[in-house]
Amino acid sequence: MSNGGGVMSSTTHLLDFLEEPIPGVGTYDDFHTIDWVREKCKDRERHRKINAKKKESAWEFTKSLYDAWSGWLVVTLTGLASGALAGLIDIAADWLNDIKEGVCLNAMWFNHEQCCWGSNETTFAERDKCPQWKSWAGLILGQEEGPGSYIMNYFMYIYWALSFAFLAVLLVKVFAPYACGSGIPEIKTILSGFIIRGYLGKWTLLIKTVTLVLAVASGLSLGKEGPLVHVACCCGNIFSYLFPKYSKNEAKKREVLSAASAAGVSVAFGAPIGGVLFSLEEVSYYFPLKTLWRSFFAALVAAFILRSINPFGNSRLVLFYVEYHTPWYLRKSTRFGKYPILEVIFVAAITAVVAFPNPYTRQNTSELIKELFTDCGPLESSQLCQYRSQMNGSKAFVDASPNKPAGPGVYAAIWQLCLALIFKIIMTIFTFGLKVPAGLFIPSMAIGAIAGRIVGIAVEQLAYYHHDWLVFREWCEVGTDCITPGLYAMVGAAACLGGVTRMTVSLVVIVFELTGGLEYIVPLMAAVMTSKWVGDAFGREGIYESHIRLNGYPFLDAKEEFTHTTLAREVMRPRRSDPPLAVLTQDDLTVEELQGIINETSYNGFPVIVSKESQRLVGFALRRDITIAIENARRKQEGILLTSRVYFTQHAPTLPADSPRPLKLRSILDMSPFTVTDHTPMEIVVDIFRKLGLRQCLVTHNGRLLGIITKKDILRHMAQMANQDPDNIMFN
Amino acid sequence: MSNGGGVMSSTTHLLDFLEEPIPGVGTYDDFHTIDWVREKCKDRERHRKINAKKKESAWEFTKSLYDAWSGWLVVTLTGLASGALAGLIDIAADWLNDIKEGVCLNAMWFNHEQCCWGSNETTFAERDKCPQWKSWAGLILGQEEGPGSYIMNYFMYIYWALSFAFLAVLLVKVFAPYACGSGIPEIKTILSGFIIRGYLGKWTLLIKTVTLVLAVASGLSLGKEGPLVHVACCCGNIFSYLFPKYSKNEAKKREVLSAASAAGVSVAFGAPIGGVLFSLEEVSYYFPLKTLWRSFFAALVAAFILRSINPFGNSRLVLFYVEYHTPWYLRKSTRFGKYPILEVIFVAAITAVVAFPNPYTRQNTSELIKELFTDCGPLESSQLCQYRSQMNGSKAFVDASPNKPAGPGVYAAIWQLCLALIFKIIMTIFTFGLKVPAGLFIPSMAIGAIAGRIVGIAVEQLAYYHHDWLVFREWCEVGTDCITPGLYAMVGAAACLGGVTRMTVSLVVIVFELTGGLEYIVPLMAAVMTSKWVGDAFGREGIYESHIRLNGYPFLDAKEEFTHTTLAREVMRPRRSDPPLAVLTQDDLTVEELQGIINETSYNGFPVIVSKESQRLVGFALRRDITIAIENARRKQEGILLTSRVYFTQHAPTLPADSPRPLKLRSILDMSPFTVTDHTPMEIVVDIFRKLGLRQCLVTHNGRLLGIITKKDILRHMAQMANQDPDNIMFN
Repeated sequence: MSNGGGVMSSTTHLLDFLEEPIPGVGTYDDFHTIDWVREKCKDRERHRKINAKKKESAWEFTKSLYDAWSGWLVVTLTGLASGALAGLIDIAADWLNDIKEGVCLNAMWFNHEQCCWGSNETTFAERDKCPQWKSWAGLILGQEEGPGSYIMNYFMYIYWALSFAFLAVLLVKVFAPYACGSGIPEIKTILSGFIIRGYLGKWTLLIKTVTLVLAVASGLSLGKEGPLVHVACCCGNIFSYLFPKYSKNEAKKREVLSAASAAGVSVAFGAPIGGVLFSLEEVSYYFPLKTLWRSFFAALVAAFILRSINPFGNSRLVLFYVEYHTPWYLRKSTRFGKYPILEVIFVAAITAVVAFPNPYTRQNTSELIKELFTDCGPLESSQLCQYRSQMNGSKAFVDASPNKPAGPGVYAAIWQLCLALIFKIIMTIFTFGLKVPAGLFIPSMAIGAIAGRIVGIAVEQLAYYHHDWLVFREWCEVGTDCITPGLYAMVGAAACLGGVTRMTVSLVVIVFELTGGLEYIVPLMAAVMTSKWVGDAFGREGIYESHIRLNGYPFLDAKEEFTHTTLAREVMRPRRSDPPLAVLTQDDLTVEELQGIINETSYNGFPVIVSKESQRLVGFALRRDITIAIENARRKQEGILLTSRVYFTQHAPTLPADSPRPLKLRSILDMSPFTVTDHTPMEIVVDIFRKLGLRQCLVTHNGRLLGIITKKDILRHMAQMANQDPDNIMFN
Repeated sequence: MSNGGGVMSSTTHLLDFLEEPIPGVGTYDDFHTIDWVREKCKDRERHRKINAKKKESAWEFTKSLYDAWSGWLVVTLTGLASGALAGLIDIAADWLNDIKEGVCLNAMWFNHEQCCWGSNETTFAERDKCPQWKSWAGLILGQEEGPGSYIMNYFMYIYWALSFAFLAVLLVKVFAPYACGSGIPEIKTILSGFIIRGYLGKWTLLIKTVTLVLAVASGLSLGKEGPLVHVACCCGNIFSYLFPKYSKNEAKKREVLSAASAAGVSVAFGAPIGGVLFSLEEVSYYFPLKTLWRSFFAALVAAFILRSINPFGNSRLVLFYVEYHTPWYLRKSTRFGKYPILEVIFVAAITAVVAFPNPYTRQNTSELIKELFTDCGPLESSQLCQYRSQMNGSKAFVDASPNKPAGPGVYAAIWQLCLALIFKIIMTIFTFGLKVPAGLFIPSMAIGAIAGRIVGIAVEQLAYYHHDWLVFREWCEVGTDCITPGLYAMVGAAACLGGVTRMTVSLVVIVFELTGGLEYIVPLMAAVMTSKWVGDAFGREGIYESHIRLNGYPFLDAKEEFTHTTLAREVMRPRRSDPPLAVLTQDDLTVEELQGIINETSYNGFPVIVSKESQRLVGFALRRDITIAIENARRKQEGILLTSRVYFTQHAPTLPADSPRPLKLRSILDMSPFTVTDHTPMEIVVDIFRKLGLRQCLVTHNGRLLGIITKKDILRHMAQMANQDPDNIMFN
């Protein structure tokens, strides 16, 4: 058995690497995929170096302590910043939202509620009508009532909505194009090991925070939950630059981002456990148990900071805001798409014009959801609770809150809700994909809650008038409360959101944390499961996966099972008709020949073999690393010419006496490339790529190199198997 | 590039396999490790076959539906059974526990509480003293009070405790030795891919259920939480036999077991979300997202069944029972260990004798924990709440519940608690590892809760008498309630359990679900984190990992990071001094030679190579499969003799005309064995083994086979690196 020269030396490839570090080797280009295995090895190497040094001096020991604690520090900072930003966004959006209706005379920067806090009117009904707060009609026309002031208010509402929308889209377009949308599909892709520079940068953070406030205040049909996850991930990314452990290692950075996305959901809903499960189930790709614990910590810190900032924080649902936005994928090729600013203004105008007259669409969406979830108690003043027996004043019935016949208020509410439902569903088609920060959690929940409440009231009335029907007879006697319309709304909201995102456990836990009460988990689970199954019948992708596919991101979904019987040799390159695989031999190329191979091809890496005849595999070298190493050598090492021999072996090959100094490239050679045999079923190959986070894998037959499979090859093959266009997969 | 004969044929290794199925190939021996990759491939193949057939007839379609739903069915059944069994165990243990003190005259099968339900004494204090319930002294001596009856009761208490303990250990020893202990270390090992036949069988289930009741009722220092997880896993395993999808595939079966362990924790604590996280964080090895969802469902079903059975189910803490058991690893080599029955009786006797006089040790542990967690309100009648101002009857103070000086009751309680703490800690050393079902959750929590409550009261009194101290001055004015001893108890319980098991998120969520209230999560997290760090300073293993290591199970912990710089070639076999690797050549062995190689070595598998000269790898064949295939061929195929040529290639080699019929073994050849190069760092190899669940991996150098690394080699290497005895790792 020949071991080559390597047996004599105990120097490993990694130590080699560190002995002669070439700047730039081991980093990635924009829009490239990272190699998780290498990144984790790099981190362990760094860790070993710190551990070895730590006994040398007190300073090194302090450094090692700092290093060990930096993970906790960075998630704490991320949690603090996410909570604080979410609180700021809440307060600012609330203020701007009220600006659409009027202004506080004694302090411009107070919103409606704060403005009236100091007021003398202490009765509950009059609390909103304090003299300090003037509607625009009151300020401009001097009168609060009448059709003239209604039109004036209507006009000002539209004016402000359009201004906010215009400002938002302008800021996004000019300063940070990455700030648009919910950001979750891109975060999923980044977490799966893709590089998008600037997507989580400080400009994106700043612009996304500001425009999110504006977009929310403009009354557009969008939510702030997805964008908050993006904001939290930006915080995580920015803080990770304080710690070389995280900033210099793409795999470690992704651990911080996983924790940050948990913090984002935590502040969006006030649901820390739901946030952790969301990060685990929906966005994260590589989720070690250490990350579970840190995500939980970040989520908690963020939730507590938000709770201590938020002045309306007595109810959890108050953390909700504004309107909605759902499947945007229908409109990828609109003509309007070329004019994003015009598009936003147009959609904002229609939204504002139609939303104002209907109380259920004018209201902010979180309050609407809260009202729909709430059951009718004796103290409930909502229009939805104007049942007949309540108006008759028969107190005995009200306290037991049995099912009652609906009064005119309920009928009016149902009509308005139906209109709101139609409006919201139609506006969905026109609001998706606007170039402003836009989330979809709350809008989806609102649609579901409206539909659920309507169904709930209908069933309740059915049960009242037809309590002898078989379905009602058993458990619905007259005068008892057997139907709870609020529960129907809650279940509807969960089902709708579940259908859109295909979330499961995390969704149930989020709704459970929002509403409390373990007893509702069973109907919630049933609804989420049903909606997932119904949705899956039309197509197994959630909204984020669709978005990823449409954008062509190289995302290898861990949830989707690969069930075809193809073998590695059918997927690998080169195909039968292709030119042979571009390989490097380990010790008989010159610098010129090597540069020639690199320039003639566009591959990102090249297998290195013993010789063309044997085709026995030695290792793998990356294009970027070869280019950097040659440039570096020609700049720094004397005597490296175009005719210099390049060798990847441990010892230089024997050369004629007059040949120029050879160039040793062993330090950039990956001596442990992953290989599979050509008979390996693709399902195993896909599993290996997913679980180990590979970028490429070499294919051998009986010990000889046959070809290569990259992540892109796999994604293309999967698209082909699913009868999709394989050329849709872009990037590397 | 040579592709060998394989290119011409599109038959895959898997199809080959299915065309000529040999019974027994692909199954495992007892105490062997499964190969996850193969198991998952087998399942996908099965799935493909069902999918292909499903359009053939209505019957096939029904079968495919049944197959698709069987996962949900089996977790539902498991949840139902676990919930029902947990309820039965609760009721039976409660009844037997009361039998130690007395008997219900009108109905033997009523426990103390049920016996007195029908009683006329309606006042709260008198509820426990109804005439129907007779203590043993009352029944035998005819008097309930006085020193004579105290001694009688004491005697009967010890008598019953010893009887129960004796019966429990006898049943375990005679019928089901696997029923002893908590079972969690073994379940972790099984879930990581190890086969222990009978560990989750029906006898274990039956005996564990019965003896758990007896052990709990005997008053021994043990809890029922771990054993409930074992019981739930037995249910999962038994129900999986109804579905060939799960019974015939070891990887799929482990998905059911993961869900079952979530259901077990769910019923042990009434904490479904905590159960899912426990399964994810603590016991499961391979946890796909589908399992997350199913675990959640199983946990919910189990919790609801238990809640509807349990007659005392108004409080969640009521789901707790009895006493405790902690680090048992100190006593592996006791002389007593040879006499398990004597040992149990001895420990049970001491426990009973010492526990009876102290109210805090006589009480069942769940009630003790509940009392320790509860804060002193005006209605609290506990001895722990006899503060001085309460006895003065100054109601104004009581309602605001400020900190008060302790009264004599509190001082007495503190002394009794200190004694109970010492007793419990000492008994730990003598109760571990008894051959009865024994859990450690509740006992650990009880120790922590006692310690926490003592510290809490001490701090409270400090704050009362020294409210001018710097630490108290800011937030502890006289007459305000700044110290909550109950919270200290809760935090102490979580910290102690965290130190024993090193659980993190799941522990916090379980305690949060037990007690409710998000506001306590921060102190809980801080306590759990601190105790984990303090524990990790002594050694990073939790109790389950220590148990696994002591028993020598081949468990590759996913949490432990491998940080050494060794390379694959330093770990692989053969070492430099070993005989060369036992390999098979692909087409020039006879049956006799093959049998010779198998009989001379004890390896579980053999690499197949092209020829001894080239050392190029073709595939891998398992010892068990070769033996079965040869036996099968000699029994069923005509003309297979000892001199028959064995070939693993696609086509038979050309043989002399008079040679006997050759034996084709390609169907048992794994043509896609995993390979790594000899330069691969062991950290990558360990990662591959963990994430893909491999059993072995071949090592190559420049395309030539060098050696083999098995899971056992890795575990031995890790033990060596940690300065432990590598021969401790047993099994295969």
